[in-house]
Amino acid sequence: MYITMDQIQRLKNDYPWIETPLVVGAPMRLIALADLAVEISKAGGIGFIGAGTDPTPLSTELALASSLLPPTPSGVLPIGIGFINWGIPSITPLLPLLQHYKPAAIWLFAPKAISDLASWATETRKVSPKTRVWVQVGSVADAVAVVSEEGVGVDVLVVQGSDAGGHGLVRGAGVVGLVPEVVDTVSALVAERTEAGRGRGLQMPIILAAGGIAEKRGMAAALALGAGGVVMGTRFLASREAVLAKGYQDEVVRATDGGQTTVRTKVYDRLRGTTGWDERHNARGVVNRSFWDAEKGVGDEKNKRLYEEEMAKGDAGWGVEGRMTTYAGASVGLVKRVMGAGEIVREVREGAVEVLEGFRGKL
Amino acid sequence: MYITMDQIQRLKNDYPWIETPLVVGAPMRLIALADLAVEISKAGGIGFIGAGTDPTPLSTELALASSLLPPTPSGVLPIGIGFINWGIPSITPLLPLLQHYKPAAIWLFAPKAISDLASWATETRKVSPKTRVWVQVGSVADAVAVVSEEGVGVDVLVVQGSDAGGHGLVRGAGVVGLVPEVVDTVSALVAERTEAGRGRGLQMPIILAAGGIAEKRGMAAALALGAGGVVMGTRFLASREAVLAKGYQDEVVRATDGGQTTVRTKVYDRLRGTTGWDERHNARGVVNRSFWDAEKGVGDEKNKRLYEEEMAKGDAGWGVEGRMTTYAGASVGLVKRVMGAGEIVREVREGAVEVLEGFRGKL
Repeated sequence: MYITMDQIQRLKNDYPWIETPLVVGAPMRLIALADLAVEISKAGGIGFIGAGTDPTPLSTELALASSLLPPTPSGVLPIGIGFINWGIPSITPLLPLLQHYKPAAIWLFAPKAISDLASWATETRKVSPKTRVWVQVGSVADAVAVVSEEGVGVDVLVVQGSDAGGHGLVRGAGVVGLVPEVVDTVSALVAERTEAGRGRGLQMPIILAAGGIAEKRGMAAALALGAGGVVMGTRFLASREAVLAKGYQDEVVRATDGGQTTVRTKVYDRLRGTTGWDERHNARGVVNRSFWDAEKGVGDEKNKRLYEEEMAKGDAGWGVEGRMTTYAGASVGLVKRVMGAGEIVREVREGAVEVLEGFRGKL
Repeated sequence: MYITMDQIQRLKNDYPWIETPLVVGAPMRLIALADLAVEISKAGGIGFIGAGTDPTPLSTELALASSLLPPTPSGVLPIGIGFINWGIPSITPLLPLLQHYKPAAIWLFAPKAISDLASWATETRKVSPKTRVWVQVGSVADAVAVVSEEGVGVDVLVVQGSDAGGHGLVRGAGVVGLVPEVVDTVSALVAERTEAGRGRGLQMPIILAAGGIAEKRGMAAALALGAGGVVMGTRFLASREAVLAKGYQDEVVRATDGGQTTVRTKVYDRLRGTTGWDERHNARGVVNRSFWDAEKGVGDEKNKRLYEEEMAKGDAGWGVEGRMTTYAGASVGLVKRVMGAGEIVREVREGAVEVLEGFRGKL
C-alpha cells in the first residue's frame, strides 16, 4: 500500500543521484529554469525546468544545466523537463533536444486528450530510452485513464491536490483523501490487469503527492498517505534560484492563512492574456485588487488595463493592494523566508524523516 | 510542535475513557445521536451528539446516552454535544440540561460573532466545571481570534479543512497546510502572551484535525501534521449507528473520486429551506440533479419543487440522478462499507499507529 522496497529501488535505478524520501521541484513555467532545477538535483532531489507551453528557451536552459551537472553513469542529464501539453501541438520538433540532452524525465500535464500522451511517451523513449515519463493528474478518474492509456506506460504519476498553487483542476480534493484513493484504485487496476493476463506493460507507477506540501510536516503526511515522495512548487518560489520578481517573492513570504488569502480563479489568466486553458482548469493565486475588482463586477477590459498600468510599478505592483499575479498554493503561510533551493530540499527531506521517526515509542 | 506528553496527559485526565491517538465523531446534525456517540466513546473515542441549531431533541438523546454509559469517576457523561451557535440565541435555556448530564464537552461552531462564545464557555463551566469547551474553526485567523477571545479559554480547537463534508467555510485550505499553520501560529501566540505576562488563562489548546480524514492513512497524516487527534464525519455516515436514510448511506458508500463528485455549494441549503448560515459558510455534498439544474440556471423555486417531489421516492431519491442532499466530504471515495462505529474507531486508530510505526527502519 505504501511505496515498496521494489519501488524505492526503481527510483534509485532510474535517478541514481537521488536521496529518499524523494523531493521534487515542480516545473513552474518561466520560474523553474536551469539554476533552480540543478540546485534541487544537486541536493538529492529531482529538479525540473518548466518549459510550459513555449519550449523556445529550452535549449539555452538545457545547455546551462548540462554545463553545471555531469550526466549519470547511464548517460541521462539528472533533471527533468515539464511541459503543458495543450500548448504544444507536437513533440516532433523537440525530439532532437531530448535526444541530445537525455533528460531524466519529461513531465506531461493537461493534454487536450489523454490519448495525446501516447505519442509523447513513445517518441521520447525512441530517442532517449532512459528518459522516464511523468504525468500530472488531479483526480482518481484521470489517474485511471492515464495508467490505462495504451502506449503511455506512465513511470511516475504526480497527484496534485486542490491546495496547489498555479494551474490545476477547478474542482478537486486535497491530498489527504486524493492520494490514498489514487494509490488504492491504481493498485487495484494494475493487479486486476495482471491477473487477467492483460498486464503486459502495465506497471504500477510511482505516486508522488503535490499540492499544499511546503515543509517537513506536509512531506511526512504525504508519505503516510502512501505517496512515494513529494513535489513542491510554492516553497521553491522562496528560493534564491527561482526566477521571479522580488515583489512576487516578497509576497509569497508575507502571505499567511492561504485558505483565506489565495483563491482558485480564471481571472488572473484572463488579465495576463493567458488563453488556451480549458474549462476544467484554473489557477490558485494570492487575492489582490485584480481579483476583488473582478468580483465587484469590473469588466475584463478595464481590469486588464488597470493590470497593465500596474506593471509599470515594478515590485510595488505585488501585494494585496497591488494587481500583479502571485500564483501560490494554499500552504503559502508556511513559507517564511528565502533560502537556497538545496537547503530547502535537505531541510524538508531530513525533517520529514525526523517527524516520522519522532513517533517511535510515543503512540 | 507535535502533541506533547503533557497534552496527552491532559486529554487522558479530561476524558479518562479514551485511548490515544484520539478519534472523535463529528456532531453531525440529526445524524449523530446517542447511539452513534455512545458507540464511539465505548471504543475509546469521543462521540458527540449533534444538536445543531435545534436543541429540542437533546434531552431525550442525553437521557438515552446516560442510560447506556456510566459517568466517569469525576462525574462527566463520556460524550459531548455539538451546537451550531448562530441558530441558538442563548445558552441559558440549556443550562439545566448541561448541569444535569455534565457532558464531557460542548463543541461550538459558527457563532454570529466570536465574542458570543465567551458566555457559552463561562455559563457552561459555572454549571458543569468539568465540561470542556471545544471550538471549530476553518482558518488561521479564526483560530487566533478564538484563542485570544477573553473568557473562552478554549480547551480543544477543531481545525476543519476544506475537504470536509457538510458545513464549513466557503473558501479554505486542506488540512495539509492548515493544521501546521494553526499549530505554529497558536503556539507562537500562547508563548508570546505567556512571556509578556499576559498569559494567565491563555492555555495551548489541543488541536484536532477535521476534513478529509476517512481512514488510517489520513489519521496518520494528521498526526504527522501536528494534530493531537482527528475528527471524522463522513466515515461515520457509513456506520450502523448513524441515523440517516438508507439511500443516503448507500450513496456515501457508492461515491468515489470526491474531488470531482462532491462540491461546496449553498444550493442544497436553499432547496432544503435551511436558512441562517452566513455568507462565509456553505456545505460540501455529492453532486446530483439539484446541483446540475441550479448550474444550468433552473431557479430555486422550481428546483425546490422538484426536490420536494423527489422526497416522495424515499431511498430512490438519492444518487447522481436523484435530488436528495448527500452531504459528504471529498474523501468519500475512501468509505467503502458500512461498519459498526466502534469497529471504525478501532480500525482507524490502530491502523494509523501501524502506518506510522511501519516507517521504522525504512526511511
